[in-house]
Amino acid sequence: MSSDLRLLQSIWNPCAHHPFPTLLSALQVPQSNACKSTRSFTSTVRRRNIRPVWDLPQRVTPSYHESERTELFSLKWPSPPRNILLVKKECSSEAANSLKEFACHLYNAYPSVSILLEPHTAHEIHGDLPFPTYSGEISMWSPQILHDKVDLVVTLGGDGTILHASSLFASSDNVPPMLSFSMGTLGFLSEWKFAEYKRAFREVYMSGAGVEARNVALDDSMSAPAGPADDAGPTGWSSIRGKSMGPSRAAKVLMRNRLKVGVFAADGTPLTSAGAATPSSISLHAMNEVIIHRGRDPHLAVVEVFVGGRFLTEAVADGMIVSTPTGSTAYSLSSGGSIIHPLVSSILLTPICPRSLSFRPLVLPAGTPITLKLSDKNRGREVEVSLDGVRRKESMSVGMEVRVTGEELKRAGSRIYSGVPCVMRRGGAAGEGDDGWVGGLNGLLKFNYPFGEES
Amino acid sequence: MSSDLRLLQSIWNPCAHHPFPTLLSALQVPQSNACKSTRSFTSTVRRRNIRPVWDLPQRVTPSYHESERTELFSLKWPSPPRNILLVKKECSSEAANSLKEFACHLYNAYPSVSILLEPHTAHEIHGDLPFPTYSGEISMWSPQILHDKVDLVVTLGGDGTILHASSLFASSDNVPPMLSFSMGTLGFLSEWKFAEYKRAFREVYMSGAGVEARNVALDDSMSAPAGPADDAGPTGWSSIRGKSMGPSRAAKVLMRNRLKVGVFAADGTPLTSAGAATPSSISLHAMNEVIIHRGRDPHLAVVEVFVGGRFLTEAVADGMIVSTPTGSTAYSLSSGGSIIHPLVSSILLTPICPRSLSFRPLVLPAGTPITLKLSDKNRGREVEVSLDGVRRKESMSVGMEVRVTGEELKRAGSRIYSGVPCVMRRGGAAGEGDDGWVGGLNGLLKFNYPFGEES
Amino acid sequence: MSSDLRLLQSIWNPCAHHPFPTLLSALQVPQSNACKSTRSFTSTVRRRNIRPVWDLPQRVTPSYHESERTELFSLKWPSPPRNILLVKKECSSEAANSLKEFACHLYNAYPSVSILLEPHTAHEIHGDLPFPTYSGEISMWSPQILHDKVDLVVTLGGDGTILHASSLFASSDNVPPMLSFSMGTLGFLSEWKFAEYKRAFREVYMSGAGVEARNVALDDSMSAPAGPADDAGPTGWSSIRGKSMGPSRAAKVLMRNRLKVGVFAADGTPLTSAGAATPSSISLHAMNEVIIHRGRDPHLAVVEVFVGGRFLTEAVADGMIVSTPTGSTAYSLSSGGSIIHPLVSSILLTPICPRSLSFRPLVLPAGTPITLKLSDKNRGREVEVSLDGVRRKESMSVGMEVRVTGEELKRAGSRIYSGVPCVMRRGGAAGEGDDGWVGGLNGLLKFNYPFGEES
Amino acid sequence: MSSDLRLLQSIWNPCAHHPFPTLLSALQVPQSNACKSTRSFTSTVRRRNIRPVWDLPQRVTPSYHESERTELFSLKWPSPPRNILLVKKECSSEAANSLKEFACHLYNAYPSVSILLEPHTAHEIHGDLPFPTYSGEISMWSPQILHDKVDLVVTLGGDGTILHASSLFASSDNVPPMLSFSMGTLGFLSEWKFAEYKRAFREVYMSGAGVEARNVALDDSMSAPAGPADDAGPTGWSSIRGKSMGPSRAAKVLMRNRLKVGVFAADGTPLTSAGAATPSSISLHAMNEVIIHRGRDPHLAVVEVFVGGRFLTEAVADGMIVSTPTGSTAYSLSSGGSIIHPLVSSILLTPICPRSLSFRPLVLPAGTPITLKLSDKNRGREVEVSLDGVRRKESMSVGMEVRVTGEELKRAGSRIYSGVPCVMRRGGAAGEGDDGWVGGLNGLLKFNYPFGEES
Repeated sequence: MSSDLRLLQSIWNPCAHHPFPTLLSALQVPQSNACKSTRSFTSTVRRRNIRPVWDLPQRVTPSYHESERTELFSLKWPSPPRNILLVKKECSSEAANSLKEFACHLYNAYPSVSILLEPHTAHEIHGDLPFPTYSGEISMWSPQILHDKVDLVVTLGGDGTILHASSLFASSDNVPPMLSFSMGTLGFLSEWKFAEYKRAFREVYMSGAGVEARNVALDDSMSAPAGPADDAGPTGWSSIRGKSMGPSRAAKVLMRNRLKVGVFAADGTPLTSAGAATPSSISLHAMNEVIIHRGRDPHLAVVEVFVGGRFLTEAVADGMIVSTPTGSTAYSLSSGGSIIHPLVSSILLTPICPRSLSFRPLVLPAGTPITLKLSDKNRGREVEVSLDGVRRKESMSVGMEVRVTGEELKRAGSRIYSGVPCVMRRGGAAGEGDDGWVGGLNGLLKFNYPFGEES
Repeated sequence: MSSDLRLLQSIWNPCAHHPFPTLLSALQVPQSNACKSTRSFTSTVRRRNIRPVWDLPQRVTPSYHESERTELFSLKWPSPPRNILLVKKECSSEAANSLKEFACHLYNAYPSVSILLEPHTAHEIHGDLPFPTYSGEISMWSPQILHDKVDLVVTLGGDGTILHASSLFASSDNVPPMLSFSMGTLGFLSEWKFAEYKRAFREVYMSGAGVEARNVALDDSMSAPAGPADDAGPTGWSSIRGKSMGPSRAAKVLMRNRLKVGVFAADGTPLTSAGAATPSSISLHAMNEVIIHRGRDPHLAVVEVFVGGRFLTEAVADGMIVSTPTGSTAYSLSSGGSIIHPLVSSILLTPICPRSLSFRPLVLPAGTPITLKLSDKNRGREVEVSLDGVRRKESMSVGMEVRVTGEELKRAGSRIYSGVPCVMRRGGAAGEGDDGWVGGLNGLLKFNYPFGEES
Repeated sequence: MSSDLRLLQSIWNPCAHHPFPTLLSALQVPQSNACKSTRSFTSTVRRRNIRPVWDLPQRVTPSYHESERTELFSLKWPSPPRNILLVKKECSSEAANSLKEFACHLYNAYPSVSILLEPHTAHEIHGDLPFPTYSGEISMWSPQILHDKVDLVVTLGGDGTILHASSLFASSDNVPPMLSFSMGTLGFLSEWKFAEYKRAFREVYMSGAGVEARNVALDDSMSAPAGPADDAGPTGWSSIRGKSMGPSRAAKVLMRNRLKVGVFAADGTPLTSAGAATPSSISLHAMNEVIIHRGRDPHLAVVEVFVGGRFLTEAVADGMIVSTPTGSTAYSLSSGGSIIHPLVSSILLTPICPRSLSFRPLVLPAGTPITLKLSDKNRGREVEVSLDGVRRKESMSVGMEVRVTGEELKRAGSRIYSGVPCVMRRGGAAGEGDDGWVGGLNGLLKFNYPFGEES
Repeated sequence: MSSDLRLLQSIWNPCAHHPFPTLLSALQVPQSNACKSTRSFTSTVRRRNIRPVWDLPQRVTPSYHESERTELFSLKWPSPPRNILLVKKECSSEAANSLKEFACHLYNAYPSVSILLEPHTAHEIHGDLPFPTYSGEISMWSPQILHDKVDLVVTLGGDGTILHASSLFASSDNVPPMLSFSMGTLGFLSEWKFAEYKRAFREVYMSGAGVEARNVALDDSMSAPAGPADDAGPTGWSSIRGKSMGPSRAAKVLMRNRLKVGVFAADGTPLTSAGAATPSSISLHAMNEVIIHRGRDPHLAVVEVFVGGRFLTEAVADGMIVSTPTGSTAYSLSSGGSIIHPLVSSILLTPICPRSLSFRPLVLPAGTPITLKLSDKNRGREVEVSLDGVRRKESMSVGMEVRVTGEELKRAGSRIYSGVPCVMRRGGAAGEGDDGWVGGLNGLLKFNYPFGEES
């Protein structure tokens, strides 16, 4: 299997970030989050190991089940997740410290769990951890291996970190569930507060375990330190340590459907790079949006827009956004688009500063094929393409096309997949099936913020 | 069954029209559209009859079938439709003449078909028709009887006429298919040109008839005038007259989902009138939108908006629109809403001139319950409520609520229903599965109309 | 001179209010604001008098002078103001109490000052005041007599109260200066906090008095109670009572230019009523905006718009707004208009929910004549006209026109007039020449309110 | 005086163009526009000369006079203009051919006139002209020399060409009048049709000449070829050739006020380059707008906005536009700004895709100082700055400021200057004082384009 991520990384600029960064300066957090390891026999030699990802067991894939009272799905593991990928916000000491704290907790309380880190994260922090982590050289760190090994993704950062974590599975059709914690500021993608991390992880970890499993876990948690990770019983849930499991409810998951995006040469050839063998490696998925933009060229881009194979219009604009409902509160919102609930199966077409008085944003059925073609009226100029805020290294030239469709909910028997399964936070005023959307509108976007008293 | 339509008519002002009227003055059309009746034995006494609707046979209900290549459904009659309701634009002599021409064609070419007219239309034109029509006094003309008798609705007018015809089935869950012809100007709801009426009606009439039925029809059409209407063979399709049926394709239907709207008193009592017995008679359906508006009171309305049972925001505004995707190109568009394709299962919440800089239009899943409650901050003032451009006679006072949800596609075995089944026009550049939407954006809304040469 | 205000009141609905009402419920204020009168010799018989306005001396008209460092003008009285019109918010006990407190302060500290009240206010509160006020029967209470007698207007309420006070001078070319206090909530028109009322009034009262006058005042304020009001010295400023005048600065005035609005019949006849003798009585002025609106008729209005005598466009819309820059933060803002600084000499043309994708708001030079003509495409329907939120009693029918121009700054020698001279509040972070606009944007409109932490 | 234009050209990218390019492909025009020279004695050696600009006589500066019936000014030359700068659209053979035709007409009909060309234009076409032109090496071609020599600018192209010609005088306070012809498509800046060029030029050339001058011209034009250019009589108007002057009217001029823009380092140092001696050379003028934009960096820019020295807001956006009313129909319009008439003395502040729901465009008095400061929240990232669609070569880094004010009308006795004096086209439906604005809205911008018939 070729390492598609390298292709991805060589084409999509890995240094750029989400265009809607969290701007609050990271709060300084004390650096003393040293693990009070309860697996103290671990040798210092061993602790500094970074082990290769392919040593890990194969992935455990959960199923998702419809519930009556909500549009959210219930997460059900066939056996406990073992391989947890931790992704953190870059350049944030708070996120780094939180990741260490979280990793130590997993190491101590969930003996059968292994921790995966992105190569640069592993390089940055493994020395501070008294136990091994799994990573690898960048050259080995491919989308395929992530797809094959990762049971659960945990992000520590903001919305940009979630987008980045999602991008690691940009070429995958079956993304592992994602549990997200915010650092400092809550984003719109419904992160949990980091203070809740123990409860949140346990809820996800136990999700779908039957009553007997929970009882076992409960008993087990009373007893002495468990044996090695692979000793986990039939279900494995018995291995976790803790005072009590408490009443367990299934974790609720919002399926955030993505865009499937392909770039094509003027002659119709799908573009990534010479080595790309399979069609699956050619399309990438975006969680928020794909954008065409004039970049620093002061000329407006001229883009032919096709909808469902039919010519719709010629956009003369700074650019065009094709967005998911999830992305409707990001760049599309800034460009005047409506706010679309993430459960509306749809795809948004929003112009960026169009040279027209009458180019209103459009919302189309999710499955509609949309093609953006760079018109030859651009006279040789190129435009930038970016997915989820990451710019494609190679610009798009005249005649090239970006072809997009939205993911639709796929069912295979009782299994439902497609999209990024995001574990929703609970609690407070929000009930069982709360998707956090109303709260996000008011709390984060300051939606319909009332006129008021001058302070 | 009580006559709900009277309730409807006494509550919803029957004289008002669609707020987006067609403004072109009606073209003068020659008045000499006298039928060249081939059923010449009809006596003049008989011709002027208006017969009661309940004399008609029970309704024939079609089924709708998914097709592979399009989101449109194929219409299939179990037996040929017999009771055709003709609805025309008011105050338009062109529409009146077209209706007469159309009625004569049906009378001559489809002997088994009966023609229903709205009471005021019957009163206006039956004298010009050399055959009987079916109508009734207003007091007998109820939603229930329409629901029980009408196989197919034909409209002659513009988008406002379609809305009006749809409103006749506002309390019905199962609307007959609707075939619409434009007078003078084409609307956005994809009407056929009146010049195509013979072909269009035949296509709908034959839709779903098997090959054998078509052959029979073909043979039959060569022979002498058919017998009485009830002599139609096993399928009944053999009775139609005409040179040739030509190749038949199923009529394509776009299901336009509606809003289900209820008005409730401050104490939660559903409001219509004392006689309303069943819950089904209390909710009405809107094809475009339901609107709350301050009317002529210069004070802004204060409306509490609940989404999914959760308080979203307090709107201080001229009003609020809850709209279907079909209505997204009507009032919601004027108020700054996005354009939503009719196949996106959703419901729009658009403020009208809100006193806020940050009240962006929202798009929610179709099934989301939305409640608009008149805040007691309105201090006794009332607001207007209207459905599809028809104002409710009684204003809404403090504490009252409008509760809305969108229809979702319902399936009962192979039968799919819900929404208003609109027969789509064909031909021209548009292919089989064309829903006319792209054409409407460009041709009617002048979407993204390019800057250009001064003329 | 006939009583134009009656005309005004019979045409413009006196019961309606500003469409952007202050919605906070009035804070309950203790009712015990009885005057501790220092003019205790006043008999109870006398105190309950309401004296006729025409007994008052003729008006003192101030001049306005440009200053170097600011666009605001300095107010200069030739002699102290004597006739003070107090206008309060209706249905607010807080405003009523504040008015009484303010009136008592004037009575005690400024013996030469007389207090004018609107007839309904005089009726409501004069019994609570231990001294006479000036008012009159409604039939005698005309724009002309207000124009001839009022030196200074003081408002107690919100933006709506300022608009109402301004409307009392709607037919006047030379509006007295206006000093405004907010009740409960600060509005956008830069009201003073009521707690500052003593300082604020003194500043306005002394504005333009020379050094000698202030010294006299200072001396005088040290001495025993002053003699009768008419004993005021050459300047009259010596009569005020108080501990010290402190350093005096001229009051700063923002000239809020108004619209001059006339309504014309289809045949060009200017419309008010038969008794209206002079052209000046026909035009009225609006401080915020004039609006044409469909009212409760669900049909869109069709309005022909002429700019500078030239046909611009045919608006098919809920209505049209012609607004001053002052009004740009009121209804025009709700309809999507830009925010225009009050010192930009201009006039705004903003559509309300237009049936067009391309009707962008326009900003024109203040002097541009704008005509809104009700097209005969409205087919006999009428539309509502309102000025500053007050609806004209008679609707506008087909062919009628509203003609509008903006006031431009007029100079007559050193005197500058036109517009409503609004005394600006000072203090806090705001410097000398602060017009309060930036503060109002941020504090009141929540302009560019940052996305943020969920609370 | 140093050659500021070189500075300009080294800082502002000379290759970029107006961001709202005319997109119509240039019509092919026959290349045979060879002059039928009536000054045939000109030697071929001489014809190919490009003479240095400094050989030309000093500039003739016109005055501008207010007229009663219009806001436009009347142009009055003290003596006929002699030095005409012709500026053409690049890469357009139509514009090149038109320029040659126009130059030949000047050479033949106006013997006292000299033709200036931009260096690259001179290089491109002088070989096709049978007479000398004036230009110079780029190194000698400075703003100062243009300011000192050019009497009148003639542009052949579109709005972009006018912007470019205006930019040649970006550091000048006194721009020569500009006569503009469109190629192919009419722009919004009210160009003349090229077919009118003889009449248009004559009108401008004669503007302000008294009756006697016109008579002289008339007589003169009947006689033999005039002597050398400097032999022109007292007024010089006698030298022009032609059948008849016809009735002459003063050319009408619209003063398009510009922005004055300075860029400052974080420490407050004004920035251009080391050689810039005088403050006047540091500020540049923009006719449309100055823009800060994130360019190709996907991060949003964080810009602190100060208005009148007061902090207004922190913009988090793709960028910020500060625009003239002239520019209100360019980029600001695409970003959602209102349309402002060019005679409204104002300055626009429009955000580009702000990350806020409540950042509405603002319109401020023309003289308001506006400062855009790059916040240190940008963390070292840079943003692009551009004037009138030309990008500054050096990006703007954290702490740097762009300071802008609008030009206001300056009067020096009867002379009025400031802004770019644009000669308005006449004729057709437009009257004397027509500024072409209403026509441009409807004809070019398709303002309020009506919904309509599908074609």
